[in-house]
Amino acid sequence: MSVLTLGTVAFDTIQTPYGSSGKVVGGAASYIALAVSHFTQQQHVVSVIGDDFPQPFLAELERRGASLDGLTRVPGGESFHWSGSYHDDMVGRDTLATDLNVLIGWEPKVAESGKTAEFVMLGNLDPAVQGAVLDQITSPKLVVLDTMNFWMDVALEPLKKVIGRVDVLTVNDEEARQLTGEHFLPKAARAIQAMGPKTVVIKKGEHGALMFQGDHTFFAPAYPLEKVTDPTGAGDTFAGGVVGYLAAQHKAHGEVTWDHMKQAVTVGSVMASFTCEAFGTEGIAQLTASDVKDRWSAYRALTDCGNVAWPQG
Amino acid sequence: MSVLTLGTVAFDTIQTPYGSSGKVVGGAASYIALAVSHFTQQQHVVSVIGDDFPQPFLAELERRGASLDGLTRVPGGESFHWSGSYHDDMVGRDTLATDLNVLIGWEPKVAESGKTAEFVMLGNLDPAVQGAVLDQITSPKLVVLDTMNFWMDVALEPLKKVIGRVDVLTVNDEEARQLTGEHFLPKAARAIQAMGPKTVVIKKGEHGALMFQGDHTFFAPAYPLEKVTDPTGAGDTFAGGVVGYLAAQHKAHGEVTWDHMKQAVTVGSVMASFTCEAFGTEGIAQLTASDVKDRWSAYRALTDCGNVAWPQG
Repeated sequence: MSVLTLGTVAFDTIQTPYGSSGKVVGGAASYIALAVSHFTQQQHVVSVIGDDFPQPFLAELERRGASLDGLTRVPGGESFHWSGSYHDDMVGRDTLATDLNVLIGWEPKVAESGKTAEFVMLGNLDPAVQGAVLDQITSPKLVVLDTMNFWMDVALEPLKKVIGRVDVLTVNDEEARQLTGEHFLPKAARAIQAMGPKTVVIKKGEHGALMFQGDHTFFAPAYPLEKVTDPTGAGDTFAGGVVGYLAAQHKAHGEVTWDHMKQAVTVGSVMASFTCEAFGTEGIAQLTASDVKDRWSAYRALTDCGNVAWPQG
Repeated sequence: MSVLTLGTVAFDTIQTPYGSSGKVVGGAASYIALAVSHFTQQQHVVSVIGDDFPQPFLAELERRGASLDGLTRVPGGESFHWSGSYHDDMVGRDTLATDLNVLIGWEPKVAESGKTAEFVMLGNLDPAVQGAVLDQITSPKLVVLDTMNFWMDVALEPLKKVIGRVDVLTVNDEEARQLTGEHFLPKAARAIQAMGPKTVVIKKGEHGALMFQGDHTFFAPAYPLEKVTDPTGAGDTFAGGVVGYLAAQHKAHGEVTWDHMKQAVTVGSVMASFTCEAFGTEGIAQLTASDVKDRWSAYRALTDCGNVAWPQG
């Protein structure tokens, strides 16, 4: 199996200054899996749902090659549900409800077909769950961990333990600061590298993402959108684009180079931009391969300033 | 004359969570002129000072080829002085004092040597003063205007009038939103273009700068610093780097292309990063040509992700 995706498959109810979503499909693994599916048909999704979850979304994931053998279905259970309201800046947000439902007491099970996953995307969840999934993978080539400030507040030591086991950590800028006590991001990245991950990706939302590996630094801007409808899931989509792209390049070239890593965060940024353009998973679910490639071309032109000799003063 | 620089030559007193500057040389034209001097020795500075201003700084500007024929010296006057205190994030700041002093009633005079300037950098000042300087330039090839939210609050109509006369406007993201009423930056940029400027540069501080011209968009990240000592003057230094670079490329090639514009904002970003590394003008005043070129090379590597074929999923 090429990619293992862990995360919630859930419902979101989102309000923004521009509109409301109603109750829509969301959850980290939903976004990750859709993004990954653009790059590989070999994906194993580990998650948990109640029997209130819509079958058509699951069928769509399967149509895209994702195996749901690792999806626990709780009879009579209700799926995880998050509700939030975005501020005028479309960045700050208030959580209105977090109904854990079937997440409570869930013990993730990686089915046989997922244990051989080479690329592992541990989406934002309880670090104990992330660790329990990682325990079940035989011999991963690259493990990416996403997390958030909530786990730093309530489960810092378990979080640090799982951070110590992964190759790539993705966090946002405030989370990088909280985790390390360092304000300036290059220092925060080095402090995170000292915890274990060779590569650190610091997500800055509309301001792009910085990636650090060894002495190398790479910056990927966010694609400048005419309008952001709903940024929920953008970070998950980004991570899914990164891991999916790396898995595909690894399949093609037998290795993951620094150039591949850099391209992967540009691809992740492009994928995330589509998610921002609609409520829920709608922005990413409708994409064609040429939509992605076209925007990636436009995206790369964003930072291409050509080659002209340095002028003599 | 190649470049005309308008702006304050002044004192700043700056506090940050990490230290205090004491009373140091600052002012938009000081930063701009130092940045420009890395690219051309033909510069005409238009500003006003009291006789409290330190002679060595003026001598340094002249040593770098800047003509001070347009510098008004007010006998018995005190130079403009700004004092501010930065918040923990090193972005937000409170103004503690704004002593206009010699700025009150100043009528800017462009000396003969400055009237033939080809590149005009109108640093942040009363729009009436910016307009009065522009009136005195015979035949400028490119006029860049910098401004800030204060003038949108107290002199919006005069500001719009001068914006209508320039080629390039530089403002920060919040100012672009305030000026246009548009939240999303591509729309804000188009609204500004409709006011006159063909090119709009939206500065986002530590998050880089977006440039819009026609249907083209370019993004220049900020250079990721290990530590920001004092961001005061970074925007002015950025603008000076842009104009200086364009003037030098124009001298070399006889034109200003879109590639030149894109490179100019990367150069401006690099110059600004040096200013952030020290209080006042110290970070930019000490630079050698090789410091600038070395950092520009590192800077360009930041967004260079090589060329690899798109993987087949």
